[in-house]
Amino acid sequence: MVENEILLKSLRGEKIERFPVWLMRQAGRYMSEYRRLRAKAGDFLDFCKNVELAVEASLLPLKLLDVDAIIIFSDILVPLEAIGVKVRFLEGEGPKLDWDGELGSLKDYDPEENGYVYEIIRQVKKAQSKVPVIGFAGAPFTLSSYMIEGASSREFRRTKLFMWERERHFFNLMETLTEVIFEYLSHQIEAGADVVQIFDSWTNYLSYGDYEYYVYPFIDELINRLKSNYDTPVIYFFKGSSSFFDLAASTSADALSVDWSVELSQACLRTDKALQGNLEPSVLYAAEEVIRHKTLQLLRSVPRSSRYVFNLGHGLAPDMEFDKVKLLVDTVKSFKL
Amino acid sequence: MVENEILLKSLRGEKIERFPVWLMRQAGRYMSEYRRLRAKAGDFLDFCKNVELAVEASLLPLKLLDVDAIIIFSDILVPLEAIGVKVRFLEGEGPKLDWDGELGSLKDYDPEENGYVYEIIRQVKKAQSKVPVIGFAGAPFTLSSYMIEGASSREFRRTKLFMWERERHFFNLMETLTEVIFEYLSHQIEAGADVVQIFDSWTNYLSYGDYEYYVYPFIDELINRLKSNYDTPVIYFFKGSSSFFDLAASTSADALSVDWSVELSQACLRTDKALQGNLEPSVLYAAEEVIRHKTLQLLRSVPRSSRYVFNLGHGLAPDMEFDKVKLLVDTVKSFKL
Repeated sequence: MVENEILLKSLRGEKIERFPVWLMRQAGRYMSEYRRLRAKAGDFLDFCKNVELAVEASLLPLKLLDVDAIIIFSDILVPLEAIGVKVRFLEGEGPKLDWDGELGSLKDYDPEENGYVYEIIRQVKKAQSKVPVIGFAGAPFTLSSYMIEGASSREFRRTKLFMWERERHFFNLMETLTEVIFEYLSHQIEAGADVVQIFDSWTNYLSYGDYEYYVYPFIDELINRLKSNYDTPVIYFFKGSSSFFDLAASTSADALSVDWSVELSQACLRTDKALQGNLEPSVLYAAEEVIRHKTLQLLRSVPRSSRYVFNLGHGLAPDMEFDKVKLLVDTVKSFKL
Repeated sequence: MVENEILLKSLRGEKIERFPVWLMRQAGRYMSEYRRLRAKAGDFLDFCKNVELAVEASLLPLKLLDVDAIIIFSDILVPLEAIGVKVRFLEGEGPKLDWDGELGSLKDYDPEENGYVYEIIRQVKKAQSKVPVIGFAGAPFTLSSYMIEGASSREFRRTKLFMWERERHFFNLMETLTEVIFEYLSHQIEAGADVVQIFDSWTNYLSYGDYEYYVYPFIDELINRLKSNYDTPVIYFFKGSSSFFDLAASTSADALSVDWSVELSQACLRTDKALQGNLEPSVLYAAEEVIRHKTLQLLRSVPRSSRYVFNLGHGLAPDMEFDKVKLLVDTVKSFKL
C-alpha cells in the first residue's frame, strides 16, 4: 500500500482529482544531485550495481520534484550481462556491447546475477511508502538491437540486415530475450515493483511490416506471460507510436506509453487501455510560457473518460534545466480534473 | 507527349500493365557516372548551375536504369539563394546556410535567378521524349528548417524553439516561403515539367499537433494554389507519414509519397489519391534475395484498384550499390498487373 495511489488509480480507471505524473529518466544527469552520486559511484555500471547509491538516485525525483511514482535507477542493458554479453559504458560514448552474433555463445540467464536490481526495488519500497515503484526492462527488439549493433545506432542497419538475412537466428534471439525479460521482470515484481514498464525505444526505425512480423509477436507474448502470472500493471512504451498504435493496443498491456507522433486525444479514442505520454521532450528547452502552454494544451486534450498518466514522449536529456522540469511537474499537478 | 506514359497514367488512374518506377535521388553519388560529372563540375552548387552537366546527370537514370520518369538534378536549397540566403556545400559536411533570422534581411524572390533550373527542364525535355520530367521543390517547413538551423540537423531544436517562441515570425517566414515555392514551381511547370514533387523531408521530427498547426496550413495553401493554376500532377512527399497521413490526404495533392511508417495496403484504403513509395531504402543494403522478396511483397500488397507509383520511402544513399538499385528497378518492372 502506498499513500499516493494516483498512478495506480489512473491505470485502473478509478476516479482521480488530477492526472498522475512521472518522467522517463527522471533520475538523470539533468539533476546536480544525480551527478554528485554518479561521481561517487565511478563507472556507470558500478553506479547501477551500487545498491545504496542507486536507491538514493531512485529517490531523488520524489524528494526534489514530488512526482507520483519512482522508477528505479538502472539500465536496460544489465540483464544482458547475465546472459554473458560484455557491456561497458565509455564516458561520453554510450554503451559498447561485445557479442559475436551466435546464440551458442550466450549462457543461460541467471536472474540472481541481477540480484542488485531486486534489492534496489526492495530498498526503495522500504525507504518510502509514499508512491508506487516502477520496475522496468528493455523490450526484446530493443535489447536485440543493442546486442547486434554493439552500440547505440542511428540507423540500425546491422540489426535490419541480421533480421532480414538471418531470420531464423533473429527469431531465436528474440525468443531467448523474451524469456530472459519475462524472468527479469518477474523477479522485479516479486521484489515489490508496483508497476512495470517495458521500453521499445528504437521501434521507430522499423517499417510497419517489420514491426508486425519481427517484433510484435514477441512483445505480445512477453506481456501475455506477465499478465497471466501477475496482476501488476504493465506499461508498454514504444517509439513510432503512430505507426504501430493498433498493434500495440492489441497486446494485453494495461497502458501504452506513446511518443509525440500521435495526437493524444485521438489516441485515447482508439483504445480503452490507459495511455501515458506524450509531450515532446524538447519543449523543455523552450521558454517557461511555452512549457506551460504546451503542457496545459496536452492535458486539456485528454478526454475525461480516459485513463491517463502524464509523461514525456521519450526520456529527459542531460542538458535540460532542472527548474524547467520542476515547472513541468508543477504544471501537471496544478491541472485539476 | 512522352512515349512511356505509365507514370502519368498511374497518377490519373488509367489502366497500366505494370507499376511505374522512379527513385528519389536516382541521379546521385551511388552512380560512378554521376561522380565523374560531379568531379568535372567542381563545387556542388556549381554542378546544380551548370546546365549541361545537370542535364547529363538528370538523364543518367533513364540511360542506366531505364526508369519511368526523370527527376531533374538540382537541390531543394537553390531557391533560397534567390531570396538572399547564402548557401554553401562543404565537402562531406552537407549544406551551410547563413541567415540572421530576420525576414527583413531577405530580398524579394526573383525567379530569374533560378533560370538555370527551368533551362535544365527545357533541355531534358528536348534531349528525350521517352519519359515524363519531374520538377521539384522543398516544402515550406523543410526550407524554413534549413534556414533556421543553418545546416542539416538531427533534432531541429532551433527550428522548434523559433516556431514556439517566435510564432508570428515563423508564420511570416512560412508565408514568404509558400509564395516563393509557388512561383518557383510555376516556372518549372511553364518550362515543361510534367509532374512536380514537393519534399517535406523533416516533418517526422514534429509532433502531430505542431505539424497540424505550423506546417499543414502552408502546404495545403501551396498545393491549392498550384492546382488552381495548373493541371500538372502534384506529388507531396512527407516523412512521418503514419502520423500525418490523414492531414496530407486532405490537401489537394494528386499523390502522396509516403515513408515506411505506413503499411502501404492500409494507406491505399485510407485515401483515393495516388500513392507513391514506400520501400525502406536500407533494404538496398541487404542480399539480393531480400531486395527481391521485400519489393515483390510490397507490390503484391497494393490493392489492384489503387493508383500507385513505386519508389523508396526516402532517397537513395551514396553508399548503395548500383547493381542492387538496378535489381530493384528490374524487379518492379517485371511485376505484371
